[in-house]
Amino acid sequence: MSSAVPKVPITVAIGDGIGPEIMSQTLRVLEAAGAALAPEFIEVGEAVYRAGNSSGIGPEAWESLKRTRVLLKAPITTPLGGGYKSLNVTLRKTLGLYANVRPCRSLHPAVATRHPDLDVVIIRENEEDLYAGIEHQQTPDVVQCLKLVSRSGCEKIVRFAFEYARRHGRRRITCMTKDNIMKLTDGLFHRVFMEIGRQYPDIAQDHQIIDIGAARLADTPERYDVVVTMNLYGDIISDIVAQLTGSVGLAGSSNVGDQGALFEAIHGSAPDIAGQNIANPSGLLQAAVLMLGHLGQHEVAARIHNAWLCALEDGLHTADIYRAGTSRTKVSTTEFADAVIARLGRGPQQLAAMPALPVAAPPPSAIETPLYGKVPVEQQLVGVDVFLRWDGKRAATLGQELEALTGHRLQLKLITNRGVKVYPDGHPETFCTDHWRCRFVAADARIHGAQLDFTRVSFIDVLTLLHRLADCQLYVIKTEHLYLMDGARAFSLGQGE
Amino acid sequence: MSSAVPKVPITVAIGDGIGPEIMSQTLRVLEAAGAALAPEFIEVGEAVYRAGNSSGIGPEAWESLKRTRVLLKAPITTPLGGGYKSLNVTLRKTLGLYANVRPCRSLHPAVATRHPDLDVVIIRENEEDLYAGIEHQQTPDVVQCLKLVSRSGCEKIVRFAFEYARRHGRRRITCMTKDNIMKLTDGLFHRVFMEIGRQYPDIAQDHQIIDIGAARLADTPERYDVVVTMNLYGDIISDIVAQLTGSVGLAGSSNVGDQGALFEAIHGSAPDIAGQNIANPSGLLQAAVLMLGHLGQHEVAARIHNAWLCALEDGLHTADIYRAGTSRTKVSTTEFADAVIARLGRGPQQLAAMPALPVAAPPPSAIETPLYGKVPVEQQLVGVDVFLRWDGKRAATLGQELEALTGHRLQLKLITNRGVKVYPDGHPETFCTDHWRCRFVAADARIHGAQLDFTRVSFIDVLTLLHRLADCQLYVIKTEHLYLMDGARAFSLGQGE
Repeated sequence: MSSAVPKVPITVAIGDGIGPEIMSQTLRVLEAAGAALAPEFIEVGEAVYRAGNSSGIGPEAWESLKRTRVLLKAPITTPLGGGYKSLNVTLRKTLGLYANVRPCRSLHPAVATRHPDLDVVIIRENEEDLYAGIEHQQTPDVVQCLKLVSRSGCEKIVRFAFEYARRHGRRRITCMTKDNIMKLTDGLFHRVFMEIGRQYPDIAQDHQIIDIGAARLADTPERYDVVVTMNLYGDIISDIVAQLTGSVGLAGSSNVGDQGALFEAIHGSAPDIAGQNIANPSGLLQAAVLMLGHLGQHEVAARIHNAWLCALEDGLHTADIYRAGTSRTKVSTTEFADAVIARLGRGPQQLAAMPALPVAAPPPSAIETPLYGKVPVEQQLVGVDVFLRWDGKRAATLGQELEALTGHRLQLKLITNRGVKVYPDGHPETFCTDHWRCRFVAADARIHGAQLDFTRVSFIDVLTLLHRLADCQLYVIKTEHLYLMDGARAFSLGQGE
Repeated sequence: MSSAVPKVPITVAIGDGIGPEIMSQTLRVLEAAGAALAPEFIEVGEAVYRAGNSSGIGPEAWESLKRTRVLLKAPITTPLGGGYKSLNVTLRKTLGLYANVRPCRSLHPAVATRHPDLDVVIIRENEEDLYAGIEHQQTPDVVQCLKLVSRSGCEKIVRFAFEYARRHGRRRITCMTKDNIMKLTDGLFHRVFMEIGRQYPDIAQDHQIIDIGAARLADTPERYDVVVTMNLYGDIISDIVAQLTGSVGLAGSSNVGDQGALFEAIHGSAPDIAGQNIANPSGLLQAAVLMLGHLGQHEVAARIHNAWLCALEDGLHTADIYRAGTSRTKVSTTEFADAVIARLGRGPQQLAAMPALPVAAPPPSAIETPLYGKVPVEQQLVGVDVFLRWDGKRAATLGQELEALTGHRLQLKLITNRGVKVYPDGHPETFCTDHWRCRFVAADARIHGAQLDFTRVSFIDVLTLLHRLADCQLYVIKTEHLYLMDGARAFSLGQGE
């Protein structure tokens, strides 16, 4: 088998914690099954961080990745705190792997689960949202993280999800966001879902607010088919669904982009059980199966998957899924790999076997962003939110000071503290930090309640205002410009405004 | 009973959707049970929004709230999209209701559930996080939402959680954050949890990353006792836990602050079943029970709670919890309230009855923020992140342009796009939007890798840079200042930096 097919170079990262032991067993199974692979090993993760590379990945590793465009990666440990960035996030974002795909299926009755009929695919946006990791401490009291969402990013992941559903014979896609609160960011994701969804009338579609959506998913995952969602929500619900199949140790995931693909187990590096030969290699093995599919080696993928199902059906279970009654023998990491290898060529009795037929994967470049960049947008500056550190307590004092210093091109519209309006007409009950958002609009803008007739201001007007604030010893910590986009207000009101 | 106790004025909002029908039944039960209450009705919600008040609440309603300091609120509908703010968020934040407390307990065998032993309290920070709702569209492609976390806010909610646990005989608190990714914001919450936790050696404590924490909570909620977490995570996991008891229709929650308290059902306004007399009033009834406890009317609270348990045990179930086998009769909203009223004075047979003893509630003012404001922090400006809209594609082009225009007090350190470093030494694979973050530090800062010896810059240096950018027709959309706090870097590195 392996002699007939040219070996495909792949990049392999053995990871931290339980990573090395589950990777070595996964590679043993791949070799025994006749996968045509030429692994290049790279060093990433904790050792690289500790050696002084805060991104956790060195130049040689990037070289290999750019050659192979395929990475099989065991879990790595991001040191907590300090200046370390998550390597997973760096890899996904640098390589443009915008789609994280996690198929989760219960293996009842082989593996104990409360949800025998669970068969859900979570498609998670993989590059944006709070995972940009852009954080700034702005005052002694207040720290900020930026949540960034782009139309192009939303269009790519939503398009991908619909294409995935159609290709895999899935019938329903549920979109989850929190757009009752985050009307602009999450609202954009929801809106793009509806826009693109109209092109797929063959697929049932609905939207759920993430809180109640996650609750229903946790309670009755059988009711769901494909879920597409934003990065943070996807992170949470994909772990929930995987856990409900019986263990997060059973699932692999693919991270797919236009420029490459990364395959990994969905669990972490579990340093508490590292080196004990008790970890479940199934997640990484499933990742390898997804990788073989991606590389067109479907027959080998099916051979491994079916032998794996067979071993699970035979009740050979690692500690994480071992349950008296369901399981027969508690096995080690290596024993489980032995069991899979011994069953190569066999298939499951009760569980559905994977067919060896190649599934046609459309090239990722088929994913086009339908609207972004194709329609010019007129962007017009109409004001600025200036954020101040101010150690006083009475908002009216600050408000009056700001009213007094203006009298030029900009006027104070309101002040909020943690998003709540505190001036004018604040409530003394509102707890205030040392972090004040002061909204300025054009002096000739007409304000009646929340209705504004905005008029254009210039960036030079904003700079003049900032100079005046500095002259008055007011401590500016940041700015956010206020824009109309094609004439419509493109910023949120203050809470209570 | 009611004649002996002076009536306490409370504010009542009947809400939208199913709100009016579940509120009228809840008030019937309260009156029949002899609660000493003098309700003042206010109008809030959808009708107020539609009448042109984008905050969903008018001046008369604020007047009543400030008098009574207690609100019993049925669910209201926040219109999706547009300029409407969530009234729930406005009320919580304006009144400083920083703690959301959701006790969830399974009522096995009276109500069908997969988790008969579930008994979890979720304590959710209620004012901060992404719910500040500060959103700005910054370029044609990119929208931003600010996540704000304060030390004072973290200290208040964590202190509250430990006090709650001690007062209610709870043994363990689990903190959940995502601080492997958001090291500054979520890291602050986690750090405060550990700081304050040291003062409560009698209570077991642990921390879980929210993804795997939510997964374990969804899978085996029996293992948890009290969970304290940030606003968004709390929103999601509190709905999960409530749902796992059998229905989100069964639980009430309290929102507590120094200045007042708000009691509500945890479910939404369910407009799809409004006016049909089929909604479950239990959540609002539970909220009323929590309110009676808050007002010191413990005997009435227990009388209602025990009659409610009795009705559930008798199998009188509204449609949301009706299950053939467990339930006996499917009842309407009014029939369920009738059933509770008919059982006033009786208690449950199998479920644990609520004792009528008053639980001593320590005054909320006992919650002090231990550190914030007590130690002066030296805040030193060392640079600025300038965000540009730029419609080009090659980061190096922008980088070289920015390098050329400086040559004054500030130098370009790096450019990122959606958090990923693209200059210097970017990867062409990185997908770029029209939103570029350009980091400038002092010209005399020594840069070696991620290690920087920062030196002070002035706000005037920043303004000079912004003027130069404007002169070069570069389109500035916002700034974020870079600070050292007490000499330590207080901002995140770029992904891959």
